[in-house]
Amino acid sequence: MARRGRGEQEGEQPSPDQPTVTLSPSAEFPGLGQDELAVLREVGQRWSAAMRDRPTDWDDLPLDPTLDRYRHPPTPSRFERLARIEMFKADEPGQLLATESATLPQNRAGQRLARVRRAILGPPLASTAVLQERMRKLIALPVLSSDLLSSVAYGPEALLAVLVLAGTGALALSLPLAGALVLLMIVVGTSYRQTVRAYPHGAGSYLVASDSLGPRFGLAAAAGLILDYVLTVSVSVAAGISAITSALPGLEPYTVPFGLLAIAVLLAGNLRGVRVAGNLFAAPTYVFIVAVVLLLVAGFAQAGMRGFEALPPPPVTAVEGLTLLVVLRAFASGATSMTGIEAVSNAVPVFKPVEWRNARTTLTWMVSLLVVLFAGLTLLIHLTGVVPRADETLISQVARHTFRTGPWYGIIQAATAMILLLAANTAYQDFPRLLFFLARDDYAPRRFLHMGDRLAFSNGIIVLSVTAAIIFLAFGGLTQSLIPLYAVGVFLAFTLSQAGMVVHWRRHRGRNWHWRAALNGLGSALCAIVLVTAAVTKFGEGAWVTVLAIPLLVLLASRIRRHYDRMHRALALRPPSVPGPDVGRPVLAGGSRDRAVGGDDQESEESPQDVRHLVVVPVARLNLAALRALAYAASLGPPVFAVHLSPEQEEADRFREEWRIWGDHLRLETIISPYRAVTAPLVQYLDALHMLRPDMVLTVVVPELMVRHPWHRLLHTPIDQRLRRALRGLPGVVITSVPVHLNR
Amino acid sequence: MARRGRGEQEGEQPSPDQPTVTLSPSAEFPGLGQDELAVLREVGQRWSAAMRDRPTDWDDLPLDPTLDRYRHPPTPSRFERLARIEMFKADEPGQLLATESATLPQNRAGQRLARVRRAILGPPLASTAVLQERMRKLIALPVLSSDLLSSVAYGPEALLAVLVLAGTGALALSLPLAGALVLLMIVVGTSYRQTVRAYPHGAGSYLVASDSLGPRFGLAAAAGLILDYVLTVSVSVAAGISAITSALPGLEPYTVPFGLLAIAVLLAGNLRGVRVAGNLFAAPTYVFIVAVVLLLVAGFAQAGMRGFEALPPPPVTAVEGLTLLVVLRAFASGATSMTGIEAVSNAVPVFKPVEWRNARTTLTWMVSLLVVLFAGLTLLIHLTGVVPRADETLISQVARHTFRTGPWYGIIQAATAMILLLAANTAYQDFPRLLFFLARDDYAPRRFLHMGDRLAFSNGIIVLSVTAAIIFLAFGGLTQSLIPLYAVGVFLAFTLSQAGMVVHWRRHRGRNWHWRAALNGLGSALCAIVLVTAAVTKFGEGAWVTVLAIPLLVLLASRIRRHYDRMHRALALRPPSVPGPDVGRPVLAGGSRDRAVGGDDQESEESPQDVRHLVVVPVARLNLAALRALAYAASLGPPVFAVHLSPEQEEADRFREEWRIWGDHLRLETIISPYRAVTAPLVQYLDALHMLRPDMVLTVVVPELMVRHPWHRLLHTPIDQRLRRALRGLPGVVITSVPVHLNR
Repeated sequence: MARRGRGEQEGEQPSPDQPTVTLSPSAEFPGLGQDELAVLREVGQRWSAAMRDRPTDWDDLPLDPTLDRYRHPPTPSRFERLARIEMFKADEPGQLLATESATLPQNRAGQRLARVRRAILGPPLASTAVLQERMRKLIALPVLSSDLLSSVAYGPEALLAVLVLAGTGALALSLPLAGALVLLMIVVGTSYRQTVRAYPHGAGSYLVASDSLGPRFGLAAAAGLILDYVLTVSVSVAAGISAITSALPGLEPYTVPFGLLAIAVLLAGNLRGVRVAGNLFAAPTYVFIVAVVLLLVAGFAQAGMRGFEALPPPPVTAVEGLTLLVVLRAFASGATSMTGIEAVSNAVPVFKPVEWRNARTTLTWMVSLLVVLFAGLTLLIHLTGVVPRADETLISQVARHTFRTGPWYGIIQAATAMILLLAANTAYQDFPRLLFFLARDDYAPRRFLHMGDRLAFSNGIIVLSVTAAIIFLAFGGLTQSLIPLYAVGVFLAFTLSQAGMVVHWRRHRGRNWHWRAALNGLGSALCAIVLVTAAVTKFGEGAWVTVLAIPLLVLLASRIRRHYDRMHRALALRPPSVPGPDVGRPVLAGGSRDRAVGGDDQESEESPQDVRHLVVVPVARLNLAALRALAYAASLGPPVFAVHLSPEQEEADRFREEWRIWGDHLRLETIISPYRAVTAPLVQYLDALHMLRPDMVLTVVVPELMVRHPWHRLLHTPIDQRLRRALRGLPGVVITSVPVHLNR
Repeated sequence: MARRGRGEQEGEQPSPDQPTVTLSPSAEFPGLGQDELAVLREVGQRWSAAMRDRPTDWDDLPLDPTLDRYRHPPTPSRFERLARIEMFKADEPGQLLATESATLPQNRAGQRLARVRRAILGPPLASTAVLQERMRKLIALPVLSSDLLSSVAYGPEALLAVLVLAGTGALALSLPLAGALVLLMIVVGTSYRQTVRAYPHGAGSYLVASDSLGPRFGLAAAAGLILDYVLTVSVSVAAGISAITSALPGLEPYTVPFGLLAIAVLLAGNLRGVRVAGNLFAAPTYVFIVAVVLLLVAGFAQAGMRGFEALPPPPVTAVEGLTLLVVLRAFASGATSMTGIEAVSNAVPVFKPVEWRNARTTLTWMVSLLVVLFAGLTLLIHLTGVVPRADETLISQVARHTFRTGPWYGIIQAATAMILLLAANTAYQDFPRLLFFLARDDYAPRRFLHMGDRLAFSNGIIVLSVTAAIIFLAFGGLTQSLIPLYAVGVFLAFTLSQAGMVVHWRRHRGRNWHWRAALNGLGSALCAIVLVTAAVTKFGEGAWVTVLAIPLLVLLASRIRRHYDRMHRALALRPPSVPGPDVGRPVLAGGSRDRAVGGDDQESEESPQDVRHLVVVPVARLNLAALRALAYAASLGPPVFAVHLSPEQEEADRFREEWRIWGDHLRLETIISPYRAVTAPLVQYLDALHMLRPDMVLTVVVPELMVRHPWHRLLHTPIDQRLRRALRGLPGVVITSVPVHLNR
């Protein structure tokens, strides 16, 4: 079945040291399962029955499909003919290699477009380059951590913003809470390390959860992450832009166009492929890290001079009492600094081999960086005794307090803006890959399996950009109100994947699995707390959207899966004898129940001898087009006959007369359609024929007029197209369109 | 050629007494010309060469296409099967008659729609009813004259409105000017009488002008009329509505919806067919006539009591001097009362036989009515000494002066409103017919030849309604400003048709043709004066639009004609030997010149022995769909081979292995598309094949997956459709789609 992909990846525990290509373009063309191969062999035998008594010359073709023998075409003068054939290299008998030029569309417009595309996205990459497209650790670190680290820019602030509601006194709680968060980070980080090791092919929450807890949970996790990624893009872009505009207020009015521009840049950059995207977007993250570390060093140095005593924060009057709820809310808000910690686990397959090992190292680095920056900042904030203000961010306050307003301050702000803007890039890394995994399990449209000509999952990237852009527009670039939506989705994914790991350990034990399981269990529990707190406390502020959206997404996914399952059953090969499940039996689309029953004997031909032909040619007027269709039909051999519709008797007689003059070479059936309808009666007639001989394949040969300019179409009643659309419904009716071109 | 229709109608002077059906549904299916029949015979002979040595059983089909022998289908239990077959009656050997139920679409939605349609428009009419659909004189008179007579409601006013600018004194000129206009009416009327006699198949300005002065002039006349008709509808509807709203000011805000409603009613009414429309809309015209006549009688009676002396009009100060220009403008404005006088001449074919005689009688009646009403009203206005006022129409003033405000006055006003509203109906009569004639000569899209299931030219009627509605909306229902656009178009048509008649007489002389010619000449001259005056004086007010639009329409028409000519040349049968004109040779749509040259040997097969087959089956995955396509292809017989595209070598090898397991029954060609493009390389490859053997017909067999719900399409990459779209361009490539249905 088409889901063997997952079969493989679920099934064996591969020896982790050999490189394995999970994200291969072949995923789009899954091979057949063992069972299917068996049936295929059976079907093949039935074929040989049909093909046994074929003449000896059956197999020699009038030309060599490998185009090879004809390297010197009949008229070498005609350059283009040569060219077209040169588009293919014959690399081994019976196999051609399409050159790059063969991927260009034929018509002028298409080629021009392709050229522009190439100019922006670069030349296409061959499938064989898939391994070179992996990321080095030094690149992976910034690309995958920008989301995580950027959240340091608002995490501590979110924490304090809640505490301060309970007055200045409550601010003292910031340190223990920060400690708890650091613990959480370490726990989650470590347990993700374990996950990466355990799922070397891709350790995303979706894979882990669906593997150990079952698909439903997997989908829930996936839904949470999908929401998170889309929001990340629109929110972080908005944040980045507003950081810029608050520095240069003159640009305020251009918020929306700037935001769209940013998204467009991210889109193009990521369409250029994983590696290029990495190189493009790596630098700013490093700049940010350096800048913040500098800030910390300088800040602590100053604090050191005064013996590390905290400056007293300005007195703030309490709005509400210091309840447990407040503390929990503070904790949950602070936890948003962890969003993006899962990035690596999804991205395992894009690391250079050995994937899991590199991924794990990178993860360790990320978490340590996170801990340092987060803890450092919170402490420094405490020492400098600044409190959250509406008009200025905490980082900005601390920076100003440390460096006074000056170049250093500017750098810090710029770096912050950049990283906020780039946090989106992490989503661009993970979203398409998540959809790839979903599609491989038939939970998402299969086109997300397709690797674009730069080996990036173009479709996923485009979908992400479009959705994010729409949200960004819908909120007019003021997406801050969306931040509450974050936590729920992310922490749902965390909780589930951690829980999944616990199950995983219980299944395949391994060395001191108890400890590992315990660790994951703890992580899961802590994440669950954050999840619930966030969902409850922020429900009103918009978390309800997530709570609503996740089940809907899960539903959608399973509907998609159901459709694909049905398709696979319907298209599954069946041994000639067995009739097969009725669901697999094709019937008249939109047909009545009765037809469904009648459907059993339709379209069942899987080998030549089952195909009994009946060719029908609808003829409107005996012109070149009609004769061409007739000639084509007649050359297929009997039985063939023609049908003509006339609005009235006179016309019918005249046409029969013309038919006689032509020589009456084929049986002609005229249908008088006194109400001048054309398509409907023809369809009904063919259907009636099919009723009489459901065992025959009705081949309808229609001439199709090809006009040059689109507006010319208005000048022709597209009988052929209408016929095709109408006949589509009929089972066992094959439509053959014989093209007739009018030049210019 | 498809234009024999015109050929007939231009050519012979038919004996005017036998009824001739010009507007027959068969016009959509023109027969072959003598020359074509000759070629057809030749081509047929070539066929017999091919068919001579066919086996004797070639002709007996596995089923009787007449469905006749199978009145009792294999499983009579299945009612539906029976039903489908019962949809057709076998009325003579080799001919079926589609019953009404056979014209219903197959799918539920379509059937429901059809039922609604039928409820509004009534049951379909058989083509044989075309003669019963003609109009009786008593119906034709009101239907065709409503436009003309309605203009009496504003004609005199328009005349005086100009004169009064030169002060009260100038008003005296109204009588002589009215006299001149009456003369003009009589002249034009009489010369149209002659036209009707001379062109018994339809005497519209278009036909006459294009016959005697050449197509250009014909098209100019047609363009003028087309504009006139569209304007008539939107203007007269607006006028009617405003007449109502000025009586009931409460309805003022609903002007636009009411207008659209009115147009919708006219649309539906006319779609119901000529006769029904007539019956629907006849009464109001008669009411109007009676009402105005009553007004005249009463008015003159009162005037008689005081010895027919004119009451002195209130003194009005002159705005400008009484120059010749003013007089001319008054004349031109008054002439608008003649718009619609051509209605009958276009409508000749819808009269009951003998068409021309009935048409002529009706015309006489119309003109006399016009003269009486126009002259009478102008005179009465003079006698009652009223002058144009902004706030009240002249008719209203006269009516009030005669009857005082009371029931009679109300009736007059109501009748006026009704006739203004109904003036549109005349346009509904003539516009579609004009387009029919244009289409028959290939100057308009051929679908205007199609008679709807009520024997009305549905397409024309719909186009008219939509355009009028758009204009009505664009001007928010205040279309008075469009009135100046009228005159130009109409009088252009008048002038041209009269001039055409002069030529006509000089050609086929006949009894005292000098007099007739002189009469038409005079008419033409007078109309020309009006035309020029209108065009010049009203140029600024908007006549420029017409002056601009007419040439554009003519251009468009001739472009359409050119396209059809090219099509006819391309589709014209050619004797097997002759290569035929290059324009007729089909080439690669969008192809390069070089291909055009190479095109000569392409798609030239018009008889079976010219068709050399090569069948190619693109296979993505060896599932049921693929095997079905392969089986179908193989059953067509050799040469057949399969093509598989793979993104990388591994996949290609795996597929070949599967192919081997299946039994390797057909030659398989794998193309490695390292850039993962699917459509483009396949198209290029097929094109390359075609290059090698341009003499062969490449039949590409693609399985086509039929899903039940539209949204399911999103889940499948429609390779087959993409292929079709891309392959369309290639000459000599036939696409066969083998449907595979997934039930619900």
